[in-house]
Amino acid sequence: MATIGMAVARDFEDSEFVIPRDRLQAAGHTVVVLGAAVGERIKGKRSEQVAKVDLAVSDADPADFDALVIPGGYSPDHLRLDPKMVAFVRKFGKGDRLIAAVCHGPQLLIEADLVSGRRLTSWPSIRKDLEHAGGHWVDAPVCVDGNLITSRNPGDLEVFSEAIIDKLAANSNSANVGWQGRA
Amino acid sequence: MATIGMAVARDFEDSEFVIPRDRLQAAGHTVVVLGAAVGERIKGKRSEQVAKVDLAVSDADPADFDALVIPGGYSPDHLRLDPKMVAFVRKFGKGDRLIAAVCHGPQLLIEADLVSGRRLTSWPSIRKDLEHAGGHWVDAPVCVDGNLITSRNPGDLEVFSEAIIDKLAANSNSANVGWQGRA
Repeated sequence: MATIGMAVARDFEDSEFVIPRDRLQAAGHTVVVLGAAVGERIKGKRSEQVAKVDLAVSDADPADFDALVIPGGYSPDHLRLDPKMVAFVRKFGKGDRLIAAVCHGPQLLIEADLVSGRRLTSWPSIRKDLEHAGGHWVDAPVCVDGNLITSRNPGDLEVFSEAIIDKLAANSNSANVGWQGRA
Repeated sequence: MATIGMAVARDFEDSEFVIPRDRLQAAGHTVVVLGAAVGERIKGKRSEQVAKVDLAVSDADPADFDALVIPGGYSPDHLRLDPKMVAFVRKFGKGDRLIAAVCHGPQLLIEADLVSGRRLTSWPSIRKDLEHAGGHWVDAPVCVDGNLITSRNPGDLEVFSEAIIDKLAANSNSANVGWQGRA
């Protein structure tokens, strides 16, 4: 099965961390929480969930992951200030690996220069920022553009999680994607 | 003296509301808190300050104000989703009235299409969004470009407040700015 990184900083939208994580794990995948410092316990903005960092992003190699999930809330506003996180995401995206971002998650994609020419959705407050970055913004529960999956808000999390799981399955059946050899 | 609007929604950075408000009032100016609903009591992100809305932005006329101050925190992310607030700010800026924004405050200026060609600063996470919007971003405690005043963070609030007070005084001595006739 696949290994999926989740990029998290403080004040993440609680449900946008826990629902994709639970759905991906239930589908048999391994979820690795990526943050600034291994072992750190990060609180969600509603104080409902805690994400424990499994691996510091400075020690993470994009080649070890089949997908990267970016929950929203205020977490992406903090993540985009971490040069190591931005470098990881940029390298991940340039390799055309699966990236899934929800709500404010695409702010991190702006910082990593991965938005230009892509079709995507988000929390509506950052629509203009995504359009200025060259993205084609759509209003849909889930938007799949190649290996980029985006959703708008917590109400979209089930279809968002399904789209990630479906894309992982499709990629595992594709000759030019890496992780099927490691299953 | 001048009348200054402060645009506020939930989770504003507490000090970025209270310090400019107090300094402006101490200089003899009138501060009017603008929000979605008159009488609403809005909490700061640190739960240290409450801003009571004096006037709904839907009832506010830019012509009645000499300056608009936009505190940061997560408040601007909410304000930019309010079409009435965005319309007010756009009209305010197009009239070349004094706008002062700190931290994430310039997000509201992006939404109101007031950034292109302007020199400004901000909290660093939105630097790229401001540059994509056509702004020229600088790293300085306070940046004054005509009637646009911006600062980076709570540590800049004293020079930010001073710059607003100085600009109000300069504008009051200028023949082509409106409020001196109403003093």
